[in-house]
Amino acid sequence: MSVTVYGDSRSGNCQKVRWVAERMGVDFDWIEVDITSGFTRTADFLAINPAGQVPCLVREDGRVLAQSGAIMLYLAEGSDLIPEDAFDRAKMLEWMFWEQYSHEPAIAVRRFQKVILKKPESEIDPYLMNKGRRALGVMEMRLMAREFFVGEGLTLADLALVAYTRTAPEAGFDLDEFPAVRAWVHRVERELGLDPIGDDLMVEA
Amino acid sequence: MSVTVYGDSRSGNCQKVRWVAERMGVDFDWIEVDITSGFTRTADFLAINPAGQVPCLVREDGRVLAQSGAIMLYLAEGSDLIPEDAFDRAKMLEWMFWEQYSHEPAIAVRRFQKVILKKPESEIDPYLMNKGRRALGVMEMRLMAREFFVGEGLTLADLALVAYTRTAPEAGFDLDEFPAVRAWVHRVERELGLDPIGDDLMVEA
Repeated sequence: MSVTVYGDSRSGNCQKVRWVAERMGVDFDWIEVDITSGFTRTADFLAINPAGQVPCLVREDGRVLAQSGAIMLYLAEGSDLIPEDAFDRAKMLEWMFWEQYSHEPAIAVRRFQKVILKKPESEIDPYLMNKGRRALGVMEMRLMAREFFVGEGLTLADLALVAYTRTAPEAGFDLDEFPAVRAWVHRVERELGLDPIGDDLMVEA
Repeated sequence: MSVTVYGDSRSGNCQKVRWVAERMGVDFDWIEVDITSGFTRTADFLAINPAGQVPCLVREDGRVLAQSGAIMLYLAEGSDLIPEDAFDRAKMLEWMFWEQYSHEPAIAVRRFQKVILKKPESEIDPYLMNKGRRALGVMEMRLMAREFFVGEGLTLADLALVAYTRTAPEAGFDLDEFPAVRAWVHRVERELGLDPIGDDLMVEA
């Protein structure tokens, strides 16, 4: 399989796709897109993905797949990143959907406003901090007695969740309050061969 | 399979689970939950789903599955609601993730504020109308030359998307502006054996 991926390397959602593609040995070209440049709203890009979002994947036959969760599931099919057991697989999907609904819209959005748009704290909706802390608390409970989110090993649920959780300090969240989450972030980073970003900023722009 | 489902019948996310369970002939008990009552934030309920959300499904062995998308995929496994072709299956997942990220947080949230919380228009964030109209526009483009979202027949993508799209008029959206969407809503309602809700209110509370 040879594919083209449109992505912004500062975006956790785009990184998820890169990690799975690399781990699966997929032959891919990465086209770097600046999501703040307006490119994803141009007619050229909307012809590729009418939803105007990255990441998106284009196959050699021209067919297009969007949404990080769907792309990860597509690329990882048949691998140990997806549990064989039907219930475990469903739990993995539960955490992937939960991340997109209850985690990303708080932690990733707060990070985007703070780090990419460089908004001062006073202009960031305080609701995002509350919602993000609640999400980290739900993760902390899950991880208190577990190494990974589902089953005994790394799955797509961990990849989906780690992408923005490891950037939570950039977004203003203190992971010292969530020690099980913090330990899991480092565990997943080791599994993925990533440098620990710790409290440093991933985004230098 | 015999399961218990916690759900609020006024919630599209909960209806999705009911539709799939009924269509698959799953033996299920439905426990009606009023999401405005505070019950989903009680210790009793958080012990079932720490994320404090419905729908959630409890198996006979006590294992719990949350997130409408994950529950639908779990219950429908092996059925014709999930395409056999790997790319089509990924496209179905794309639309399911997109619905939860770009559609539900606008159309379902606006409906919740307007119909369930009975907020006056002046207190509803105008951003929700813009975002919801954009979502309906993306759907209109997809449906202009198609009967269903993926492949030739009904899939979980249609169920996921129809749940709140059919309530869009309640939320203040005019489906006459999106004729392909409107025709598809009626098509899916017929497939599911639902009374067309048209412009009438589904919620009588």
